[in-house]
Amino acid sequence: MPVDEQEVRALAQRVAAGEMRPSELVDRVRSASVCDVGFAQLDMDRAARTGVPEVVYGAGKTAEQIAGIVRALLGAGQERVLVTRLDAAKAAQVRARGIDLAFDEVSRLGVVGGVPEPDGCGTVLVVCAGTSDMPVAEEAAQTAEFLGNRVQRLTDVGVAGIHRLLGHLDDIQRARVIVAVAGMEGALASVVAGLASCPVIAVPTSVGYGASFGGVTALLAMLNSCASGVSVVNIDNGFGAAFQASLINHLPGKEA
Amino acid sequence: MPVDEQEVRALAQRVAAGEMRPSELVDRVRSASVCDVGFAQLDMDRAARTGVPEVVYGAGKTAEQIAGIVRALLGAGQERVLVTRLDAAKAAQVRARGIDLAFDEVSRLGVVGGVPEPDGCGTVLVVCAGTSDMPVAEEAAQTAEFLGNRVQRLTDVGVAGIHRLLGHLDDIQRARVIVAVAGMEGALASVVAGLASCPVIAVPTSVGYGASFGGVTALLAMLNSCASGVSVVNIDNGFGAAFQASLINHLPGKEA
Amino acid sequence: MPVDEQEVRALAQRVAAGEMRPSELVDRVRSASVCDVGFAQLDMDRAARTGVPEVVYGAGKTAEQIAGIVRALLGAGQERVLVTRLDAAKAAQVRARGIDLAFDEVSRLGVVGGVPEPDGCGTVLVVCAGTSDMPVAEEAAQTAEFLGNRVQRLTDVGVAGIHRLLGHLDDIQRARVIVAVAGMEGALASVVAGLASCPVIAVPTSVGYGASFGGVTALLAMLNSCASGVSVVNIDNGFGAAFQASLINHLPGKEA
Amino acid sequence: MPVDEQEVRALAQRVAAGEMRPSELVDRVRSASVCDVGFAQLDMDRAARTGVPEVVYGAGKTAEQIAGIVRALLGAGQERVLVTRLDAAKAAQVRARGIDLAFDEVSRLGVVGGVPEPDGCGTVLVVCAGTSDMPVAEEAAQTAEFLGNRVQRLTDVGVAGIHRLLGHLDDIQRARVIVAVAGMEGALASVVAGLASCPVIAVPTSVGYGASFGGVTALLAMLNSCASGVSVVNIDNGFGAAFQASLINHLPGKEA
Amino acid sequence: MPVDEQEVRALAQRVAAGEMRPSELVDRVRSASVCDVGFAQLDMDRAARTGVPEVVYGAGKTAEQIAGIVRALLGAGQERVLVTRLDAAKAAQVRARGIDLAFDEVSRLGVVGGVPEPDGCGTVLVVCAGTSDMPVAEEAAQTAEFLGNRVQRLTDVGVAGIHRLLGHLDDIQRARVIVAVAGMEGALASVVAGLASCPVIAVPTSVGYGASFGGVTALLAMLNSCASGVSVVNIDNGFGAAFQASLINHLPGKEA
Amino acid sequence: MPVDEQEVRALAQRVAAGEMRPSELVDRVRSASVCDVGFAQLDMDRAARTGVPEVVYGAGKTAEQIAGIVRALLGAGQERVLVTRLDAAKAAQVRARGIDLAFDEVSRLGVVGGVPEPDGCGTVLVVCAGTSDMPVAEEAAQTAEFLGNRVQRLTDVGVAGIHRLLGHLDDIQRARVIVAVAGMEGALASVVAGLASCPVIAVPTSVGYGASFGGVTALLAMLNSCASGVSVVNIDNGFGAAFQASLINHLPGKEA
Amino acid sequence: MPVDEQEVRALAQRVAAGEMRPSELVDRVRSASVCDVGFAQLDMDRAARTGVPEVVYGAGKTAEQIAGIVRALLGAGQERVLVTRLDAAKAAQVRARGIDLAFDEVSRLGVVGGVPEPDGCGTVLVVCAGTSDMPVAEEAAQTAEFLGNRVQRLTDVGVAGIHRLLGHLDDIQRARVIVAVAGMEGALASVVAGLASCPVIAVPTSVGYGASFGGVTALLAMLNSCASGVSVVNIDNGFGAAFQASLINHLPGKEA
Amino acid sequence: MPVDEQEVRALAQRVAAGEMRPSELVDRVRSASVCDVGFAQLDMDRAARTGVPEVVYGAGKTAEQIAGIVRALLGAGQERVLVTRLDAAKAAQVRARGIDLAFDEVSRLGVVGGVPEPDGCGTVLVVCAGTSDMPVAEEAAQTAEFLGNRVQRLTDVGVAGIHRLLGHLDDIQRARVIVAVAGMEGALASVVAGLASCPVIAVPTSVGYGASFGGVTALLAMLNSCASGVSVVNIDNGFGAAFQASLINHLPGKEA
Repeated sequence: MPVDEQEVRALAQRVAAGEMRPSELVDRVRSASVCDVGFAQLDMDRAARTGVPEVVYGAGKTAEQIAGIVRALLGAGQERVLVTRLDAAKAAQVRARGIDLAFDEVSRLGVVGGVPEPDGCGTVLVVCAGTSDMPVAEEAAQTAEFLGNRVQRLTDVGVAGIHRLLGHLDDIQRARVIVAVAGMEGALASVVAGLASCPVIAVPTSVGYGASFGGVTALLAMLNSCASGVSVVNIDNGFGAAFQASLINHLPGKEA
Repeated sequence: MPVDEQEVRALAQRVAAGEMRPSELVDRVRSASVCDVGFAQLDMDRAARTGVPEVVYGAGKTAEQIAGIVRALLGAGQERVLVTRLDAAKAAQVRARGIDLAFDEVSRLGVVGGVPEPDGCGTVLVVCAGTSDMPVAEEAAQTAEFLGNRVQRLTDVGVAGIHRLLGHLDDIQRARVIVAVAGMEGALASVVAGLASCPVIAVPTSVGYGASFGGVTALLAMLNSCASGVSVVNIDNGFGAAFQASLINHLPGKEA
Repeated sequence: MPVDEQEVRALAQRVAAGEMRPSELVDRVRSASVCDVGFAQLDMDRAARTGVPEVVYGAGKTAEQIAGIVRALLGAGQERVLVTRLDAAKAAQVRARGIDLAFDEVSRLGVVGGVPEPDGCGTVLVVCAGTSDMPVAEEAAQTAEFLGNRVQRLTDVGVAGIHRLLGHLDDIQRARVIVAVAGMEGALASVVAGLASCPVIAVPTSVGYGASFGGVTALLAMLNSCASGVSVVNIDNGFGAAFQASLINHLPGKEA
Repeated sequence: MPVDEQEVRALAQRVAAGEMRPSELVDRVRSASVCDVGFAQLDMDRAARTGVPEVVYGAGKTAEQIAGIVRALLGAGQERVLVTRLDAAKAAQVRARGIDLAFDEVSRLGVVGGVPEPDGCGTVLVVCAGTSDMPVAEEAAQTAEFLGNRVQRLTDVGVAGIHRLLGHLDDIQRARVIVAVAGMEGALASVVAGLASCPVIAVPTSVGYGASFGGVTALLAMLNSCASGVSVVNIDNGFGAAFQASLINHLPGKEA
Repeated sequence: MPVDEQEVRALAQRVAAGEMRPSELVDRVRSASVCDVGFAQLDMDRAARTGVPEVVYGAGKTAEQIAGIVRALLGAGQERVLVTRLDAAKAAQVRARGIDLAFDEVSRLGVVGGVPEPDGCGTVLVVCAGTSDMPVAEEAAQTAEFLGNRVQRLTDVGVAGIHRLLGHLDDIQRARVIVAVAGMEGALASVVAGLASCPVIAVPTSVGYGASFGGVTALLAMLNSCASGVSVVNIDNGFGAAFQASLINHLPGKEA
Repeated sequence: MPVDEQEVRALAQRVAAGEMRPSELVDRVRSASVCDVGFAQLDMDRAARTGVPEVVYGAGKTAEQIAGIVRALLGAGQERVLVTRLDAAKAAQVRARGIDLAFDEVSRLGVVGGVPEPDGCGTVLVVCAGTSDMPVAEEAAQTAEFLGNRVQRLTDVGVAGIHRLLGHLDDIQRARVIVAVAGMEGALASVVAGLASCPVIAVPTSVGYGASFGGVTALLAMLNSCASGVSVVNIDNGFGAAFQASLINHLPGKEA
Repeated sequence: MPVDEQEVRALAQRVAAGEMRPSELVDRVRSASVCDVGFAQLDMDRAARTGVPEVVYGAGKTAEQIAGIVRALLGAGQERVLVTRLDAAKAAQVRARGIDLAFDEVSRLGVVGGVPEPDGCGTVLVVCAGTSDMPVAEEAAQTAEFLGNRVQRLTDVGVAGIHRLLGHLDDIQRARVIVAVAGMEGALASVVAGLASCPVIAVPTSVGYGASFGGVTALLAMLNSCASGVSVVNIDNGFGAAFQASLINHLPGKEA
Repeated sequence: MPVDEQEVRALAQRVAAGEMRPSELVDRVRSASVCDVGFAQLDMDRAARTGVPEVVYGAGKTAEQIAGIVRALLGAGQERVLVTRLDAAKAAQVRARGIDLAFDEVSRLGVVGGVPEPDGCGTVLVVCAGTSDMPVAEEAAQTAEFLGNRVQRLTDVGVAGIHRLLGHLDDIQRARVIVAVAGMEGALASVVAGLASCPVIAVPTSVGYGASFGGVTALLAMLNSCASGVSVVNIDNGFGAAFQASLINHLPGKEA
């Protein structure tokens, strides 16, 4: 559990009273919030510190490990848990271990505890260049929903038919933050950012072949966007884009 | 000048009256806001559309071209102009053409019309890993100031001495948006994002040698950050990070 | 459906009469030609605008999505549809959904509505370096046929036996446009372009091993051709080369 | 000089008469058209074979070599000569050797014998994303003019301000062939090809910094264009794009 | 068997006596310690020369070859043998050939002859960033144990939650040598090295996706560490890191 | 069949007599030696021109194609045929089509017509760094034997145990040409070339993991050898190295 | 200055007495040891924490910044300072600011306060492949001397002439830790590690041309060493290798 | 000086007589032929061992070091010395130190002691694709002459004008070994190897721009040659190709 003011005060009194060595206080301050489940050190303090709960990266973990982590998080009071990069088989194995996990085939996300009501400031617009980019776009959209955002989707509006995009100008200009998902040459991010007045988070996808190099071309193109206001996440990282979009969408207005 | 409702109505009446071909209306709608200065097509509508004025990318342009663009923007009513990637010699040549440009050696930025009062919602924190990263960090910090943000700087707080960073935990947790600038292995972004509760925009720098490959290593590391809430811009692109940070910092609170 | 002069005039009259907001006119102008089938936005205006019908990129789409798109295109009046990058299983699934699709194993192309009579100006010559390059060469040749071109094929005429190529000098010099398909070191494009007097579109293939890097070596070699008159498409992109070759082959002669 | 039918007949008669060894005939057939000036083998037959004269690639050649080659080409009856990738100093040295060479600073082209009247079928449209891309765009435009094409230029119409491009829709749709020049993320080629009905030849430029990798990002993006009808040449190769555009623009209409 | 002083003296006497050609002596000196088992040349002298026994790299070898090599090494007096990069099936095949091999699923190591008592000077600390890095971390930890080291493990202490690491500061400062295992951005090595006073050997892992490029990003980040005292081994090379850590941990103190 | 003096003379007489168009003679001269089997153009003149028979690259060809090519070559008088990059299944399919093909599992080579007596000048020494490199080394060794060379093999003599190599100094110094096969860091080529007085042809293999990048590291290392006398072939290209070694081994002594 | 037990106790008493907020104590604990000189945060606690003093990386810092940092470090009680990656001009500028700095042209190192007596356990052997590698080797050797190590140098013992290396076998086997410096194919590290019984730290250098890619080839080769006991630092990072070698050389013997 | 049989016998007698420790004999055997000039270990035995004299790689060495090495080699009886990668200034400095060095501007080679009469078996043919490749071709040609070969040059016979090459078919078929030098797409090597019956050593050059990547494209193309009989050296390594060509050209005919 995280350390709070009260606890620090109590510890300080014990040190002052000579009942405790100063270094113990230092250690307690530093390591307070970590829960050790053997194969993982869970950061229970994260929700407090960053405003969002711990999420489980499902790739490279066994169903047993995932179930263990989910159980520990729920046990520590976390209301809902998101597991990313699952597949149907592993999701079933997690469920078989008694975890009530809802799994979505397209986004490959598993959710425990359901999706909350949106509580963000505006809308997260998830724009996607082609039908083949939909798994990544859905990972972004559903993650944003899990994190409490109202989400709007624009699918298959790649730049080769610019009119498809221009037909949605109002949506683009009304969004509070945009997640732009594209593979191949990744030009969507530049065009969208040129039309929008809000931050654009670009997600390159591994859609393509040959010199798309598994998404590297889209990644590079997005990093070199001639439009201002674009930042980029890793290839196929719909989750990461949605996470940051959610942070942005939950920022309060002007501080006093 | 941008097309407004009134003008569209007037055009529509002329078309309805048979005084104008429909295609002329379509063209006007599409091209209204562009000012052609020969070697450049200036987007006069940008401030209206995106909330921020047109900025001049100084690299690869002659002093004559820069002066021409600045003059056109001022003439179109833009109050202040930012020119990026200048050097002292070119800045002097621009000034010699009658442009009242203030130039900063470290950030390589030129400003016409001065820096405005901050009007963003909170503070943009610019965190920088090493002394050698300062030019990029200053490009970010001064761009953010030009765009109306209150800026705080943390310099030389790289992860090799983690205590330097932990000593500024309060600053990190108070910021509304963070720009994290680092070369070499670029680990700063991950550590900062793990400590912060706001969006982190990471800027890899070309600081380093050998297998830093001019910033590619830092770029890749930032894209693969194990911390959530990090998005990345191009190598040495302090301007781009600040631009997005400013967009985020100017977002209003919850919409009705 | 695309917007035409008549419709714009009608819209303008409604705006002039105050029956319609000007922005609605603008939106209509911009988005007229797109058909939304949920997971895809079909550009119905494409044939009008570019002279060739919409083609379906089959990779990364489910049979259901492909069938849906084909049905929408046929429904919108498109006479025939080409689906690229299929495999036998998926083609069967598309047929099982009631689409009368002819599938070719070598080129991996599916065709609905048959192949038209050639109506181009001359012959598209598809030259191919080795037997292993045939799938890509056939994708190019059959695409060109689908798009209304007379096609001639030269197979296995790689530069290691230059006499094989020189024996076909007449074919090379008679072609209106050449598609040169090669893997490994991709030298065929340079040699052919040196012998031809027409445009050469080079297609690197992923044929090779080790330092061929899945076609990158051939791609780079073709981009660096010491012969003039060569342009290049993506690795294994026989379709793209044929598409452009067809555009060239359908260009009319000198305009008045 | 190239071998013609008459000469082959004469040679054949000598062989038949036993006055000449058969292998001499073979050699003559094969090597007829090459002029050896010591450091270079000039292909005098090229104009006949490919429809365009030999062009001199100026980089990596001394002024002395360039002057020698130009002199040989003029001596062999070529009317005009284009020299690419010159600089002012080398151009002056070539002129100092008695060659009447006109040099253009922006395109770095040198021309001997002036520019001909356009004799192509339509217009070559050279579209360019940013002011910094102008040297490459001019290399393309002036090369096309040298090769007998009517050329139209669109400058600084990058995709970040899509309206700048849409304002020139008519020009795009009237062109017979388009050369699209862009650095950074190179998205211009995709958007233009989506709007055009003619072939688009894309030229990536080395404009950019950081992860633009001297034009590699633009190159990759163009190769992965989601729009059909795009082929690509080497980075900064305005000459090569114009050369192929000219071939296309000089193709006759439908053959009988 | 290795050549010793006694044997050299005997050989020298034979040469001196003219009973042996000098070149035979030279050959014997050079090739003494190699045992040829047909498909492999075993270096029987290695333990003497380097202080550690020959280890069998299991990848790319058949079970038959592995069994043959193990048998030869045991026959030559080596007490225990380590086989790396096995899988369960191949391990079973080796056992089926009469080799008493213990196999561990996680580390993919096979051990013949058991693990010895630790005889190193201090503790080898194996620190690992995430749960998915455990196979590599275990390869390192168990190799170190095989080589006679006392090993301590810290799992899932990646830098996104820096408190997890700081909670183990004492362990870090007490270690004699640290093996730091991380994928993704590989920042763990830098942070650990900044906290430690002993050598840190960094092992990048192939954990990650997209721009992690199978561990290349972590590798590059570790090579560019801003912290001093870090050296790096190949991606996923837990064995190699442990091998060097063991060499360091067995170094004696100050020599007289 | 290749064109010979007699045929040229006959053709010349027909041209001189006006019975044949000169261009027909030219065509005949150029294309004489090619046999078209539909999917392949076989260079029947190759043995005459290069001293070695046509070899069939088996990867990417169907069993049917391979059988067809072999049959054509045998039919044209070629005594024996080598097929590379086969696997057991495809070899069986070729045999099922009536081709008497001997297949070797390790080298993946198929041979029709047996292996000839060695007729080269000296010995081709195939040196190989590790047991895992044996498939490539065997491809080289057996290819060399097929091409008429006496071959000696040194296996598992990598540089980590330099004594294993030094023990074979005589073999190295007696060879007429050496093929050095190594993966991982590929240092074997440099060390061998430093010890040898004959040409060394280096073959990088894809043996290794992580930063070996499928043989790229070994390839680069061999290209940068600090020893003179090394040239390099593609990764895993044992065939190519043996082919060149055989050319070298069959060169006659000093010409009169 | 670092925080000590006494200070923590005093702080705790103030907190207990309500004279100080608990968070102030936490901040003090975390940031105690950092000295802020404006453009740099010096880690004064480093010597205590890691056993070696702060070193100044000279590249990318102005002479003024270097002088300021050196002054601060000396002022904080550090006895001697090492500045890396200087050049003669900058060194002179630092001296002109009153810093008594000794500069070495070959290694590009500057030393303030002289070199101490060696106090390590054994000898650090710096082995270097070619004469051109000497600058990096000297950076390593002189850094090791600065850090209190006895250093032995072997120069120009590359593997192309293996006898040069074998002639120093005793030196290799007597060393406590070896730094192996090589460019080109970097094979030296593997051969040395095969001969040594101590840890080998490999330093790739940027010596070479073409496919050496500025040291990347040597780096990759070293990472893929077939010899055990090798770890690697960044290209040209002689300092880093020496730093780790010194850590190893100062490790005490077996702990009680 | 190298160790000979007589010396080994004498040493052996001393060991046998107990006058010398066996290990001294071993050391003498191993290190006999190296001459230490401080910054370099010269391999005096090289001529004996490899048939060619030590050559000095001039890049990265000072004039003083070069002069010292040349003097040592001449002093040790080497008749002539080749110094590669010089420039005019450094050559002058070497001459100023009393070395009688002839320097060639194009090849950048310096020769001491003149060029010998050719004593190889046949002719080394150096074929070069373009005028800009001449410096590398001359490095190859003049190195071959220095090493005692008769050399023939074919310049500017790139594949874009295949007739230029075919006109020299006789030269290609008469050569004993061919060095093929080309930049850009490097296709020359494949075409030449298809025409030749002797070994072809390919030298990629750094001639080109953009995606030629300083010669990498040519290098990769040559490694992937579809023609058999090609091996490759490093980019711009004319020396290395000539060195191996000379080895091949000096091989005697069939051994008894």
